[in-house]
Amino acid sequence: MNRTLVTGGLVLGESGESSAEVLIEGERIAAVAARGSEVAEAWARSGAEVIDASGHYVLPGGVDGHTHMEMPFGGTYASDTFETGTRAAAWGGTTTIVDFAIQPVGGAVREGLDAWHAKADGVCAVDYGFHAILSDVTEDALKELDALVAEGVTSFKLFMAYPGVFYSDDGKILRTMQRAAGNGGLVMMHAENGIAIDVLVEQALAEGRTDPRVHGEVRRALLESEAVHRAVQLSRVAGSPLYVVHVSAEEAVEELVRARDAGLPVFGETCPQYLFLTVDKLAEPDFEGAKYVCSTPLRPEHHQRALWRGLRTGDLSVVSTDHCPFCFSGQKELGRGDFSRIPNGMPGVENRMDLLHQAVVDGRITLRKWVEIACAAPARMFGLYPRKGTLSPGSDADLVVYDPGAEQVISAETHHMNVDYSAYEGTRVRGRVRTVLSRGRVVVDGGAYLGAAGHGRYVPRSTCGYLD
Amino acid sequence: MNRTLVTGGLVLGESGESSAEVLIEGERIAAVAARGSEVAEAWARSGAEVIDASGHYVLPGGVDGHTHMEMPFGGTYASDTFETGTRAAAWGGTTTIVDFAIQPVGGAVREGLDAWHAKADGVCAVDYGFHAILSDVTEDALKELDALVAEGVTSFKLFMAYPGVFYSDDGKILRTMQRAAGNGGLVMMHAENGIAIDVLVEQALAEGRTDPRVHGEVRRALLESEAVHRAVQLSRVAGSPLYVVHVSAEEAVEELVRARDAGLPVFGETCPQYLFLTVDKLAEPDFEGAKYVCSTPLRPEHHQRALWRGLRTGDLSVVSTDHCPFCFSGQKELGRGDFSRIPNGMPGVENRMDLLHQAVVDGRITLRKWVEIACAAPARMFGLYPRKGTLSPGSDADLVVYDPGAEQVISAETHHMNVDYSAYEGTRVRGRVRTVLSRGRVVVDGGAYLGAAGHGRYVPRSTCGYLD
Amino acid sequence: MNRTLVTGGLVLGESGESSAEVLIEGERIAAVAARGSEVAEAWARSGAEVIDASGHYVLPGGVDGHTHMEMPFGGTYASDTFETGTRAAAWGGTTTIVDFAIQPVGGAVREGLDAWHAKADGVCAVDYGFHAILSDVTEDALKELDALVAEGVTSFKLFMAYPGVFYSDDGKILRTMQRAAGNGGLVMMHAENGIAIDVLVEQALAEGRTDPRVHGEVRRALLESEAVHRAVQLSRVAGSPLYVVHVSAEEAVEELVRARDAGLPVFGETCPQYLFLTVDKLAEPDFEGAKYVCSTPLRPEHHQRALWRGLRTGDLSVVSTDHCPFCFSGQKELGRGDFSRIPNGMPGVENRMDLLHQAVVDGRITLRKWVEIACAAPARMFGLYPRKGTLSPGSDADLVVYDPGAEQVISAETHHMNVDYSAYEGTRVRGRVRTVLSRGRVVVDGGAYLGAAGHGRYVPRSTCGYLD
Amino acid sequence: MNRTLVTGGLVLGESGESSAEVLIEGERIAAVAARGSEVAEAWARSGAEVIDASGHYVLPGGVDGHTHMEMPFGGTYASDTFETGTRAAAWGGTTTIVDFAIQPVGGAVREGLDAWHAKADGVCAVDYGFHAILSDVTEDALKELDALVAEGVTSFKLFMAYPGVFYSDDGKILRTMQRAAGNGGLVMMHAENGIAIDVLVEQALAEGRTDPRVHGEVRRALLESEAVHRAVQLSRVAGSPLYVVHVSAEEAVEELVRARDAGLPVFGETCPQYLFLTVDKLAEPDFEGAKYVCSTPLRPEHHQRALWRGLRTGDLSVVSTDHCPFCFSGQKELGRGDFSRIPNGMPGVENRMDLLHQAVVDGRITLRKWVEIACAAPARMFGLYPRKGTLSPGSDADLVVYDPGAEQVISAETHHMNVDYSAYEGTRVRGRVRTVLSRGRVVVDGGAYLGAAGHGRYVPRSTCGYLD
Repeated sequence: MNRTLVTGGLVLGESGESSAEVLIEGERIAAVAARGSEVAEAWARSGAEVIDASGHYVLPGGVDGHTHMEMPFGGTYASDTFETGTRAAAWGGTTTIVDFAIQPVGGAVREGLDAWHAKADGVCAVDYGFHAILSDVTEDALKELDALVAEGVTSFKLFMAYPGVFYSDDGKILRTMQRAAGNGGLVMMHAENGIAIDVLVEQALAEGRTDPRVHGEVRRALLESEAVHRAVQLSRVAGSPLYVVHVSAEEAVEELVRARDAGLPVFGETCPQYLFLTVDKLAEPDFEGAKYVCSTPLRPEHHQRALWRGLRTGDLSVVSTDHCPFCFSGQKELGRGDFSRIPNGMPGVENRMDLLHQAVVDGRITLRKWVEIACAAPARMFGLYPRKGTLSPGSDADLVVYDPGAEQVISAETHHMNVDYSAYEGTRVRGRVRTVLSRGRVVVDGGAYLGAAGHGRYVPRSTCGYLD
Repeated sequence: MNRTLVTGGLVLGESGESSAEVLIEGERIAAVAARGSEVAEAWARSGAEVIDASGHYVLPGGVDGHTHMEMPFGGTYASDTFETGTRAAAWGGTTTIVDFAIQPVGGAVREGLDAWHAKADGVCAVDYGFHAILSDVTEDALKELDALVAEGVTSFKLFMAYPGVFYSDDGKILRTMQRAAGNGGLVMMHAENGIAIDVLVEQALAEGRTDPRVHGEVRRALLESEAVHRAVQLSRVAGSPLYVVHVSAEEAVEELVRARDAGLPVFGETCPQYLFLTVDKLAEPDFEGAKYVCSTPLRPEHHQRALWRGLRTGDLSVVSTDHCPFCFSGQKELGRGDFSRIPNGMPGVENRMDLLHQAVVDGRITLRKWVEIACAAPARMFGLYPRKGTLSPGSDADLVVYDPGAEQVISAETHHMNVDYSAYEGTRVRGRVRTVLSRGRVVVDGGAYLGAAGHGRYVPRSTCGYLD
Repeated sequence: MNRTLVTGGLVLGESGESSAEVLIEGERIAAVAARGSEVAEAWARSGAEVIDASGHYVLPGGVDGHTHMEMPFGGTYASDTFETGTRAAAWGGTTTIVDFAIQPVGGAVREGLDAWHAKADGVCAVDYGFHAILSDVTEDALKELDALVAEGVTSFKLFMAYPGVFYSDDGKILRTMQRAAGNGGLVMMHAENGIAIDVLVEQALAEGRTDPRVHGEVRRALLESEAVHRAVQLSRVAGSPLYVVHVSAEEAVEELVRARDAGLPVFGETCPQYLFLTVDKLAEPDFEGAKYVCSTPLRPEHHQRALWRGLRTGDLSVVSTDHCPFCFSGQKELGRGDFSRIPNGMPGVENRMDLLHQAVVDGRITLRKWVEIACAAPARMFGLYPRKGTLSPGSDADLVVYDPGAEQVISAETHHMNVDYSAYEGTRVRGRVRTVLSRGRVVVDGGAYLGAAGHGRYVPRSTCGYLD
Repeated sequence: MNRTLVTGGLVLGESGESSAEVLIEGERIAAVAARGSEVAEAWARSGAEVIDASGHYVLPGGVDGHTHMEMPFGGTYASDTFETGTRAAAWGGTTTIVDFAIQPVGGAVREGLDAWHAKADGVCAVDYGFHAILSDVTEDALKELDALVAEGVTSFKLFMAYPGVFYSDDGKILRTMQRAAGNGGLVMMHAENGIAIDVLVEQALAEGRTDPRVHGEVRRALLESEAVHRAVQLSRVAGSPLYVVHVSAEEAVEELVRARDAGLPVFGETCPQYLFLTVDKLAEPDFEGAKYVCSTPLRPEHHQRALWRGLRTGDLSVVSTDHCPFCFSGQKELGRGDFSRIPNGMPGVENRMDLLHQAVVDGRITLRKWVEIACAAPARMFGLYPRKGTLSPGSDADLVVYDPGAEQVISAETHHMNVDYSAYEGTRVRGRVRTVLSRGRVVVDGGAYLGAAGHGRYVPRSTCGYLD
């Protein structure tokens, strides 16, 4: 079998760092040895292909548990295809994504899944899995869920927002949670009180308040935390676990803390945009604020402190991107004169690992917390661990050689996502991906893309690893 | 003017007790004097009619802020009319009720109000006011609210329960709260997540679980506290006050505590049934549990401790009855074989003052807390203070002479409510009403009813007295 | 008996306002009548001396539950004697003070009491009572407490601060609380961790940080809240109530809230200086900061919000002054070059009622909350209610006619306290005392002092009125 | 170098389980390989000594962060020497202990350390480190701490209990914490309010309540949680981390939760006795309760739920034993007639790993939580990770082969601790240690002790691994 030795680096994991040598056989990590040990020295002499990681970090490839490639929204589509999006992910050190297959209203969950498989099949640069979005919780749909879990689609997303589109009422939520309690599935929740928000949207528009800025005003933090609380209580009634996506408000974190202090299986995710950007972005002139329209919305700065604290205390488990890019030109612009028509979403799949490394540089998180929230925890949460998210013997050889000292400036000019702006344009960060392996194959190295569409394979997932 | 002197008693108020003489001129309290003062002695010699209250308490007539006379529910009507119900109230020492006029679906709020005025006009034994139940929150209905406040209907009840009947979704709730924030109205909330409860009801029935006992199981405490939390958050978004009716669950009290600790204008009511009865009643054999079916439901005993504590700490403000009697025979029996068809409600308007006095005897509350939660606080909450709820110069002469040492056994055989059972059948309590005055007129005395249908008048109300 | 009629005013009480006439016979309030009632009109024709309160408030005289007249501290004495201090109280609308008699170390509690009686006897302008400060908790001292309660000294103050002076360790505190649990006494606590603070003081001085400003830095808010928490737990172990004096920190309020949410008999007091002044005062140049040195210390502004909220929610019960004046010249100056030698304390007994009325004007509290926190609650807390703190039939005729529209500027030039500065110098407030009655005698009227040293009498106190 | 291959087992770590082969070179783990990989198969053919772990768990040797070998207490000594105690540890799968060297009152911290080195040197079966107990916090002692950290004694224990013996007042605690904040040391706290407890002890004895049972009554849970809260606040003032030893009360856990929710570096430890035994043990007849006298004391059963929840949520980080055995005969009996003279402490160093495995069997914790709380977390907490607590390349080859299916009954008849009773006498547990390696040497195997006194070496420690 093909053998590769990654040598000389500081190997990072969620438990800590070590000076170790990583031996890859084919697509898997075969062994890890202490630097200087006899066995490691034997490897060096064994003729394996050598990747010299001296002076670099060696860490598991990132796992982005929340992306929306080619997602239809408001009459348009997210601008990254699975091909462009997973390639950008690879460039950014992310080697697994979990995307959302959308059940069509009036249709089966499987229809959505089939459609998404069709989009992804044969074009992806890195591995991928699917969550299912339930947009029509019927008895039939609920019955489908058991089979889906069995075949590796082990998480179902519901929306308390977007009435008339993805919205499920509390009865549908409760039924889904009951089903998940039975089959081991994980309910993922977009927690915003969309019914109340839509009243505020309508009132704002009626008052002529149409700017992107208003998007951040009407989606009140209290209406996020309310929904988190409600979802938690429904999950308690159902006896199911709960994963709250894209938490952005301090008050929402507080509800997660309450639930977790009580020992409930409740988990929270946040995203780089909430950690690094604030509501001020929405007020940028010339409709530029539209670039930053996503839901939950960007918040005032003090919320960031709560999010960082939540990551440190473990009350927030995962940082995903909610990557859902729409070009400013032609897409975001659909909402000129009516902020409610701006496609919701931002690009980011390529930037996550770097931004979080910058948080390490800034002293906000430790190295091992970086690996935890960006690699290990999402893998464990979504049933991919230890295949993904760790550099352990037997794991997939998804591996990043990271240069912690390099500097880069994030820009749409240089990024690889298929979108005409960067949410972090001009941001200078320390650290950069040098080499990326996906299942043992070098797909990015030294500024060159060496991968291929179709290398990335679909990965069926086990159930959530935090529930055993 | 007609003058009455109530002499020799211990006068009770929300602030404390005093040995004082109460002088009534016509329908009002003219003055209160210290016993033994020269002025009091002059009164005794002045030829006023004298009510000797020696050895008795003299307290303000009770104010029951939550009754449902003749309420239509599930194809039948609450069995007390305004005539029988207010007479029973008088027997029990309650001299003011605030009943709920129901907006018909598809109709105006005023239609409901007109209908309820028609029911009550000319037949009541004691004074009464109206809240409005909004069962169809349209733009037109919202516009009506300002006028209603101006004419003395200053509180609007919404339901988070009973989908398809009274239920309002969060958008309707928010709009109503916004309107109330503008016009000084008080939103009253039936806080239970009816959408989720109905799922559990349907599942229980599908499983053949049809007994009254199941009523108490499906209406989960968590689904009450969830709704309280949600209502609080919506009121914060709207900037309005909130009054939560018939709080029964410890977890719901906890949400009120959180809100009140934050200084929010959020208030809670509980009822004697939650303080004195438990869920065990619902399990009584031979369908007798149906007598105790009301919503929110009776709870396990530990919830009672939280309710009493809430009353002592002030986190629960008011004890009302939610008086809504249905005869066991012919009415409650509608739900044989399907607990969901049992008319929801219990009798109690006659028992409240006595049961709460028993709590004084038992050391659960002080004398002044009794007066506060049963008289002063509901009066202040609903804009009736100081006309009602206190024995102050200028107040209506609604007054109870209470014998704290008497004993009685509560029973349907002796009560005056028009219902064929008592929820407290056989309960022995210390204390009993001796004499009741309504606006200066003796309506009950020494076991005789001396009042008259039509003595009781409609009382327009000011806005909530806790918001100044 | 001498009869006085206070007519035409708006009578204020903790429960609300009413247009009422107050009839005084001798030293007591005989009766209160509704304006316009026949009985009131008869009074007007009866030849009683009339005080016209038209356009004014009529409220109970203030009760200041925390003063230190002539208190020895750091080698000097508080500059107000009982004569000057109670006269200033009268000027400011306060008609009862409760001062602290200090047990000498090595001596009996009664020795302190005898000494304080000697200071106060025959010189006071208004009524007064005593708390006992325990500075030497011996077995003998504990035994004295039962007798003290029986004779009207029903509260005992302990210090968790001031090691070597008033400090009691946790064992002494626990023993005192146990004794109080048995005899109905109320333990009052100066809650600051003095042992830890003294470490910080010593370190600050060693570093040459000697300014008054440092006083506010070393007395950390966390060391106040720590002590509050500890005192609460000790009181739970002992089964006794607890009253925490001069609460100034948000974190301390939070501990009170926790305790009170649990239904514990724990009470908090704050003072005008914490409500109206901030730590910035301590940084005033030329050693002027010394004027504002008191313990607990002034805090940054955000703490004020928590204190006002605590008053509104009832988690803080009382506003007292902790009046303990030291002249800047010759007294405060003792601490030049060493902030720890600045006598701790500020003047304020004359300003409390006016400052709190200003809070009414500013919309921070209601009129009835003003009366509650300044009159009724301290009277009830310290066993003086309803003799003091209310205008009820039978109460002492301690009464203030207050002009709510007058304006005044607080200044040492015009105040009547015996101290050479005002903590509120130059502060403009709306409202001013016009007439003050103490036990039926006019002691202040229209800018003239009409009282007499010795009119004020010692008032033995019942036990705390919040524990029945 | 000597090579050993541990093959066929399920390798456990704090992050999860894997089918892996562990290669040891000399005293260290050289490499870990995936079972079935080419490299693993090569190892199997390489002539390494093979330990067959098929059907067994392979986990890191346990790390017991809290033992007291030969500790003097109340005129006697803990009955296990370093020789007998570390051998018993090895029998029970614990391969590292951290014991407490006691500073003598009036002496230097180093004196204590020298004495403890002398006791341990050359006799230990497994590796060991030292914490320092500060029983006399002088300026000189504080100065010593920096050097101690530099040489590997990186944690200092203080006592809020035991006045007159180990007790430090809040000033001493604050000074120590300040020093630790500067030098990276970790303050460990025995958190009980000993001053208050001693009052209750004295009162109990004076009342003739002398039984062991009373030990559990006077050491009130509130006096544990009070001390935890106080320690947390002092650590906040000092800016230092805090580790609370032997947490036993639900209320104490709650204080840890509050601190950790706020993101503070506060950690908690509990012990098997609090997880598996209750206060009922103290009431065993014939003075047998004395066997269970330790401080903090055993608690009523409901506290156990809070402790298990705390372990699951991570609010409790570590399970240590507080191993401090005294024979019933001759030692515990010193307290007949006076519970306060019973030597405080229980045996347990041998039982910890098994008892916690039983918790896995019972579904209380996961396998990886077992390894976390018993191996990895204590190692990281006390600066031993990744040398100890993990089976990673480069780690010490401290390794346990554990038979999860075996059954055993814990008994003094079969245990290896030098004490005449077992706290868990007769307890049946699933799982048992088969083979134990300490730094690559087999010290226990198949029921035989193969180690040697003196094999165990002193391990200097880095600073706490949770603070980076």
